[in-house]
Amino acid sequence: MTTPVIDTLNTRVTIRTYQDKPVSEEMVQAILGAARRSPTSSNMQTYSIVVVRDPETKKQLAVLAGNQKHVEECPVFFAFCADLHRLEMACALHGEPLVKSLETTLVATVDAALVGMSAQTAVESLGLGAVMIGGMRNHPAEVAALLGLPLGVYVVFGMCVGWPDPINLPAQKPRLPEELVIHYERYDDSDPTPLVQQYDAALAEHYNAQGNNQHAAAWSGPIARRLNGKIRPFLRPTLEKLGFAFD
Amino acid sequence: MTTPVIDTLNTRVTIRTYQDKPVSEEMVQAILGAARRSPTSSNMQTYSIVVVRDPETKKQLAVLAGNQKHVEECPVFFAFCADLHRLEMACALHGEPLVKSLETTLVATVDAALVGMSAQTAVESLGLGAVMIGGMRNHPAEVAALLGLPLGVYVVFGMCVGWPDPINLPAQKPRLPEELVIHYERYDDSDPTPLVQQYDAALAEHYNAQGNNQHAAAWSGPIARRLNGKIRPFLRPTLEKLGFAFD
Repeated sequence: MTTPVIDTLNTRVTIRTYQDKPVSEEMVQAILGAARRSPTSSNMQTYSIVVVRDPETKKQLAVLAGNQKHVEECPVFFAFCADLHRLEMACALHGEPLVKSLETTLVATVDAALVGMSAQTAVESLGLGAVMIGGMRNHPAEVAALLGLPLGVYVVFGMCVGWPDPINLPAQKPRLPEELVIHYERYDDSDPTPLVQQYDAALAEHYNAQGNNQHAAAWSGPIARRLNGKIRPFLRPTLEKLGFAFD
Repeated sequence: MTTPVIDTLNTRVTIRTYQDKPVSEEMVQAILGAARRSPTSSNMQTYSIVVVRDPETKKQLAVLAGNQKHVEECPVFFAFCADLHRLEMACALHGEPLVKSLETTLVATVDAALVGMSAQTAVESLGLGAVMIGGMRNHPAEVAALLGLPLGVYVVFGMCVGWPDPINLPAQKPRLPEELVIHYERYDDSDPTPLVQQYDAALAEHYNAQGNNQHAAAWSGPIARRLNGKIRPFLRPTLEKLGFAFD
């Protein structure tokens, strides 16, 4: 049982190497139009998209993302923003304040993610390739300044888009066994160890086949090494300065 | 310029009324398989999906969502969860703690949103209809207890899925003018008032055509009335109790 949508999702791979070939304005508009139809909490549409083609801006974004060269090299970059600024302006039209909270922060973050995922599926359906860039949260204030974001807007993640380099097409990475992520009726909290170890081995095999030697426990090992300290500890105070609340 | 994916996204409407007809297991599996290929931050896959068909569970979820009858009436309900529990188990395999932070909370929330959006697009490509249910955040602790979620897991949103009732097919709702949500190179912070008022009128016309009289400023008016007080003020302490950090 499949559809062209399901095929597109099932066959997708993350693309970080692009041909030196532009993405047409017509395609960009088709992607944006489809993304704008994504569902949104209570029709609030608390997101914005900044489309970046300027080489200098992409170069600076690449550095801010932690020297991710594909951000500079892609012909077009999309920044998916959580946007409470426009909502604040809407409330002001009626003489009301926008009371921010953790809920408004989550709603705007999720709205941006939904739009980003729809955009990526549209991108891939056109034969283009993409990679999402969570590294936009490495330096949220600098990214906001570079893109001229007003208070109440932050970039949740970005997306590089371009024509896949056919010589460097990556193999599809295996995902966690479905028994670990899909539950029926209630969450199955059985010990995940055997399935995690099975996945660690499958992922190690995948990396080895790419000539890319990794930790023998290719999933859990790097995660344990990476998350035993606080990740992006500056994020809370920085997002507060950018106009988001967490209470 | 279009593709079947772009068509599916462009023509989607939110469906809250369903035929009394089951969704086949084959379709559910096709939806879940496609959703599991969504991109995920650093391949961490910090989400889980709970698939609910049990009438009693759906009935209770409907009440917890604020008496949303479609949650009870849909043949199948998907709960998209942010999941740090599995990551914590992975770290423990290597004798490491998982240090939680605002970043890990956002990563898991975004991962769940990406999977949810892919699932919805797959659903709609099959001719099924769906509505996402943010009301799962009305009573996150009760929802977690009902679904047996361990610490470190919360439902970001749910999704009702079923066969659209052809007699109650809704018209597609207009979206904010693209000039308000799409920016080129830098955020355009011009006064949004004229475009917001134009959208308020377009949305009022849409509601009137459905025989559904709303505030004359159909977008900004209800938003201003709703957001002038703190929304879901319990969310922060409740999600902390469920094992999420915001620092």
